[in-house]
Amino acid sequence: MRTVEWDYAHNQVCMIDQRLLPGELCVVAYADYHQIADAIREMVVRGAPAIGATAAFGLALAAYRSNAPDATALRLELKQAAETLHEARPTAANLDWALQRVLKAAMEVQGNPYDLRSAVLDEAQRIADEDVEVNMRMARHGAALINDGDTVIHHCNTGALATVDWGTALGVIRMAFEQGKRVHVLVDETRPRLQGARLTAWELQQYGIPYEVISDSAAGYFLRSGQVNKVLFGGDRMAGNGDVANKIGTYMLALAADDNDVPAYCVVPTSTIDLSLANGSQISIEERDPDEVLNLQVGGQPVAPSGASARTPAFDVTPHHLLSGIVTEKGVIYPPYEFNLRKVLEDK
Amino acid sequence: MRTVEWDYAHNQVCMIDQRLLPGELCVVAYADYHQIADAIREMVVRGAPAIGATAAFGLALAAYRSNAPDATALRLELKQAAETLHEARPTAANLDWALQRVLKAAMEVQGNPYDLRSAVLDEAQRIADEDVEVNMRMARHGAALINDGDTVIHHCNTGALATVDWGTALGVIRMAFEQGKRVHVLVDETRPRLQGARLTAWELQQYGIPYEVISDSAAGYFLRSGQVNKVLFGGDRMAGNGDVANKIGTYMLALAADDNDVPAYCVVPTSTIDLSLANGSQISIEERDPDEVLNLQVGGQPVAPSGASARTPAFDVTPHHLLSGIVTEKGVIYPPYEFNLRKVLEDK
Repeated sequence: MRTVEWDYAHNQVCMIDQRLLPGELCVVAYADYHQIADAIREMVVRGAPAIGATAAFGLALAAYRSNAPDATALRLELKQAAETLHEARPTAANLDWALQRVLKAAMEVQGNPYDLRSAVLDEAQRIADEDVEVNMRMARHGAALINDGDTVIHHCNTGALATVDWGTALGVIRMAFEQGKRVHVLVDETRPRLQGARLTAWELQQYGIPYEVISDSAAGYFLRSGQVNKVLFGGDRMAGNGDVANKIGTYMLALAADDNDVPAYCVVPTSTIDLSLANGSQISIEERDPDEVLNLQVGGQPVAPSGASARTPAFDVTPHHLLSGIVTEKGVIYPPYEFNLRKVLEDK
Repeated sequence: MRTVEWDYAHNQVCMIDQRLLPGELCVVAYADYHQIADAIREMVVRGAPAIGATAAFGLALAAYRSNAPDATALRLELKQAAETLHEARPTAANLDWALQRVLKAAMEVQGNPYDLRSAVLDEAQRIADEDVEVNMRMARHGAALINDGDTVIHHCNTGALATVDWGTALGVIRMAFEQGKRVHVLVDETRPRLQGARLTAWELQQYGIPYEVISDSAAGYFLRSGQVNKVLFGGDRMAGNGDVANKIGTYMLALAADDNDVPAYCVVPTSTIDLSLANGSQISIEERDPDEVLNLQVGGQPVAPSGASARTPAFDVTPHHLLSGIVTEKGVIYPPYEFNLRKVLEDK
């Protein structure tokens, strides 16, 4: 199944509860868009492209559950629902991008509330289907950068679970592997929520790709000792100059890759690129519940002393000069990013 | 009490079992030097200066438990015990340094096995006492670098628990705080063994110094957003050019400090400096049990999928050009390190 999908039999949204992996593969169903906003906030679903598709389906739920007497009233409800969904998480560009696409479809359609809700669902479904296609295209462009025998450091989870299906950076690795290239993945465990140790390790096991989990802080050791050929990660929002907000730790990883002349690629669909932002300093960075750092246990015992406090920024910004290239569905983009990103995005 | 000490009533070595902190403050006693080697290997005691003093007391145990008929036979036994203790952990310079000091004392003393064992214990006790003195001196030199109101990122544990008492890098912070300077500590949790979240947080609570635990990977975010004034860490072995092996993650932290023009200081007693090594590439790096990465739990559930494998280098090497200064008991040493380290160490 896909990470998130519309259930046409019951007009509800089904998704894998990623908080329970790898222990349990559990699918949850939501019938109300407020639940979708909560699911995004609580990271039942995460990963910028998956969040985008989920929010789009959230608007479809709003349309399907509405009692609005006419299309105008429904459009107003959809705008309110979009605001609620928008507020669930601030950093991923795909969330806004998907909401705007669906709202635009709702504005353009003629007819009664039934026509409108069909149009909204169709557009959400198109976003989901396109995500898979876009990821396959990105994966092919990116796989050309991977050599047979490469060892790759990968940060966070950017696989099928971070998207509707297939993945971004992990999709590149998967494509290279399916093309017959031998590839070994050093999986950043990705504190604090451990998406690498939980989700990326689990996905790689499913695909049969060899991997080893490492502490995020160990990436520098492997890079400096010449054991790494490439560094790959995704992105949650990229500014017009190529600065990219991604899962916390990406900046230090990219710095260490740069210090050792190991190429670092950011793999993002163009829907993650936000040309309205001149640079990364304009990206809003979410800070999450301190418990995400403090809730660790070893041997059943809590790690931190009781009463400890913590800070938990969920993302950091990697400056564009640390990126060797940006892999998109339209090809690999190289510097100067400010010029080339605009050129690629505005080329219809 | 001290982290490790000789129990004169029972001629045994007592130490805090650091694996049980912060949940439990438990003191264990050892009467056999093989147990001391195990305790070092299993990290009942850790931190380069604490390991040094512990190994010295281990030789005293070997002397006290020996049935050697004469001084020559006892010296041979001590050499064998030193080899066993030496092999417990490979990276910390202080381990060798302390063993060599005690062996030298054993070689120099005249008399029977009783005279020899007294001399061995006296030298071990001197190493322990000097460690506390040296740390206080380092702390005073280092505290002069801390300004009122500073926010400091600190890696691993370098406090009283990493030494016989008082600490190295954390000792600097403690001294600045006791001098009345307001200081806030961002505590790197320090994966995989979490000495920051476990031990440093616990020590800072005891001292009343305000702190927040962060993921190691978040240091770059705080540095880049201008929230950090200094970065402080200890060292396990420093080569003659200033390259320093320290807890895994130090290299990436120092890189991020450098990228943001935030001063990074390494705080080490001169016993950690190994002039026999030209540079950091000659330092042997310990790789530990993969379970140290994989044994995490959240909510009682394991994080990684069953069957996952992992890599666990315990240290990395930070190149000297990333250090703004090296704080020792003989003062703060600045570049050119190769010249200045030798000058300070050879100055009697």
